[in-house]
Amino acid sequence: MSGGCLEGVRIVDLTSVVVGPLTTQILADHGADVIKVEGPSGDIGRYLAGKGRNPGMSPKYLHLNRNKRAICLDLKRPAGHAALGKLIESADVLLWNVRPASMSRLGLDYDTVRRIKPDIIYCGMFGFGQQGRYRDMPAYDSIIQGVSGVADLNRRTTGTPAYVPYVLADRTAGLIAVQLIAMALYHKARTGEGQCIEVPMYENMVTQVMTEHMYQRSFVPPLGETGDPRVLDSDNRPIRTLDGYICISANTDSQAHALFDAIGMPELKSDPRFRSVAARFKHVREYFRIRGEAMARRSTAEWMEIFRAADVPAAPYNTLEMLFDDPHLQDAGLFQEREHPTEGTILEIQPANTMSAGMRKDWLPAPRLGQHTEEILAEMGYDDDAIERLIEEGAAQGCPAAEPS
Amino acid sequence: MSGGCLEGVRIVDLTSVVVGPLTTQILADHGADVIKVEGPSGDIGRYLAGKGRNPGMSPKYLHLNRNKRAICLDLKRPAGHAALGKLIESADVLLWNVRPASMSRLGLDYDTVRRIKPDIIYCGMFGFGQQGRYRDMPAYDSIIQGVSGVADLNRRTTGTPAYVPYVLADRTAGLIAVQLIAMALYHKARTGEGQCIEVPMYENMVTQVMTEHMYQRSFVPPLGETGDPRVLDSDNRPIRTLDGYICISANTDSQAHALFDAIGMPELKSDPRFRSVAARFKHVREYFRIRGEAMARRSTAEWMEIFRAADVPAAPYNTLEMLFDDPHLQDAGLFQEREHPTEGTILEIQPANTMSAGMRKDWLPAPRLGQHTEEILAEMGYDDDAIERLIEEGAAQGCPAAEPS
Repeated sequence: MSGGCLEGVRIVDLTSVVVGPLTTQILADHGADVIKVEGPSGDIGRYLAGKGRNPGMSPKYLHLNRNKRAICLDLKRPAGHAALGKLIESADVLLWNVRPASMSRLGLDYDTVRRIKPDIIYCGMFGFGQQGRYRDMPAYDSIIQGVSGVADLNRRTTGTPAYVPYVLADRTAGLIAVQLIAMALYHKARTGEGQCIEVPMYENMVTQVMTEHMYQRSFVPPLGETGDPRVLDSDNRPIRTLDGYICISANTDSQAHALFDAIGMPELKSDPRFRSVAARFKHVREYFRIRGEAMARRSTAEWMEIFRAADVPAAPYNTLEMLFDDPHLQDAGLFQEREHPTEGTILEIQPANTMSAGMRKDWLPAPRLGQHTEEILAEMGYDDDAIERLIEEGAAQGCPAAEPS
Repeated sequence: MSGGCLEGVRIVDLTSVVVGPLTTQILADHGADVIKVEGPSGDIGRYLAGKGRNPGMSPKYLHLNRNKRAICLDLKRPAGHAALGKLIESADVLLWNVRPASMSRLGLDYDTVRRIKPDIIYCGMFGFGQQGRYRDMPAYDSIIQGVSGVADLNRRTTGTPAYVPYVLADRTAGLIAVQLIAMALYHKARTGEGQCIEVPMYENMVTQVMTEHMYQRSFVPPLGETGDPRVLDSDNRPIRTLDGYICISANTDSQAHALFDAIGMPELKSDPRFRSVAARFKHVREYFRIRGEAMARRSTAEWMEIFRAADVPAAPYNTLEMLFDDPHLQDAGLFQEREHPTEGTILEIQPANTMSAGMRKDWLPAPRLGQHTEEILAEMGYDDDAIERLIEEGAAQGCPAAEPS
């Protein structure tokens, strides 16, 4: 009994790297039984993403694969493929993130899979929707950022096209796949029906970019140009203080007026350049200059105390290193040391959200390649001899017993 | 019968601007009956986010509020508050995005609400988790980007702290709230129980940033520094071609070798500086310089043709304006002209994902303030006289009959 809203839901997870593993980790944190299926070379995310204490156990892999069990099958061998079929028979959800043509080549297209398991929730994540001509193009996060307009937002702000230094397209698609799978589970609970879900990264990122920045071209004929100028303003950034940076958001009149009081310039409240939202927008350079000069005179902590008292929305600027010592995150226990059975002490990020009906109660350390192969095959009804045969012929692969780090 | 996985689910939506309206629009696109509750001044997102054809109908508002109905209630008046209570009695989900203290002041804390509706799914979205000392701090997207390390990722890449020009924290929290609500609906379908959900933006953004960039500090003691150098490399950006930019992701050996063939430099495949992933990583400046010089010699379209044939992952760089003419998006019909009854022809972004069990079938144009006040009050059992009284005393507000644009 894992606990959590998805207790008892079995996910067969064919995904790798970030987009899919992020999806299934969230599902697992809510109690789903996620079975990570890897080929003999393993999820490339095991190797790509930083140095671990052991090969195949990179830090990013550890962050995205807790609470899952891992089976290693060679799907190109008939017995490995057959074992996956048995797994699918027992599953509620099958998730994959390769190009659709690859799924067909593997004999794992929707029509085939639902013959094995008619009420399966079959969810594919890939670069480009199947209704458009880019349908077979390979996709990676940076490519999707570039084609979807994300890199162009940086060009609008800084003059140079650039990707956001964060795998935004992968993460967005991953978060959305969780939504759709959870809704499909709800639909299945009410109707007994499974379904086929397609999550194209390109269309999803364009949606995120353009609901925000289609702006005056949302009208036909257009009422103006694309791009929300407040968000794209290159001065809309953390502000230097005496000892670091501070983040301020003083948009309404009462916030801006509280800011003017706090910086000791109450006369600006009645200054025609700054007294209203429209006036400040028009004189934004001058507004930002005055604000910047004021901030440079005190430390971040001093300003935070002043702004807290005045209810000016502000927060300290954190570098990644500062996050480890952030007092709020320490109160909340977001980072927790865990003893991984083979990787030693790791710093894990706990679930950020709370659900009063509970989250997963047990904790499964991110698995080694093939760690649960025998266990899962046994659950599928394979006896010891059959498991041994699968492993001997290379259709399945276990892993050596854990050596404590 | 709206159609979609969430058909028959009623959401009472107290949210405004971006984070909450994004959440409820997705739920509405999947068939939920979303009732947008606004005070007499309306969702500030109606006014803030660009110029519309009519006041209170900004383009961003239009993009985030389709498929909802709008009721206008003054919750500070007892009769308005009582009407909300009746709405909650009929609801599956109550969603809000103010500070928790404001909900308590309104008499809408979880304990009070569940006395009205014991199986309610009560979901709050706010800046900082209630377990930490920043719990009462106000939050806006830029503040969360600054405190959570997003702005620091830009500093690591460019030298200057900056926000991503896209309300990333709002959007991330909004996407996550949809997940949790859908999971809670599934839990309710299986157990009959509602629950209280808390979605703190800060903890969620730190999770997104740090699962990617905690990197070598994921180990105790650390194996190195924070930050994935591949993602943070300032040269990891779209590459200039003869007539624009192109986005390339050639990471594996076979992709990089295909790239060397495509640019007419097959000798690099056996060059010790470039023949393996590790070698290219070590000589990344030289690798990017050679790639950049090659790209500058042909147009984006020429390169795309070459790369398609060679299966090098690549895509054209799109500006926001180019997206309107993108042939793939045209094939997919992502942007559709719609006739809004009062706002004229608008360009709407269709749902990006496909679900074979169906999405919402009807289309409700983004509502004017109070557009469905009378209709919804009547559904709650108020008769014509009672509705008139509520409106006369200012506890509810309708809106004038539509004038076609």
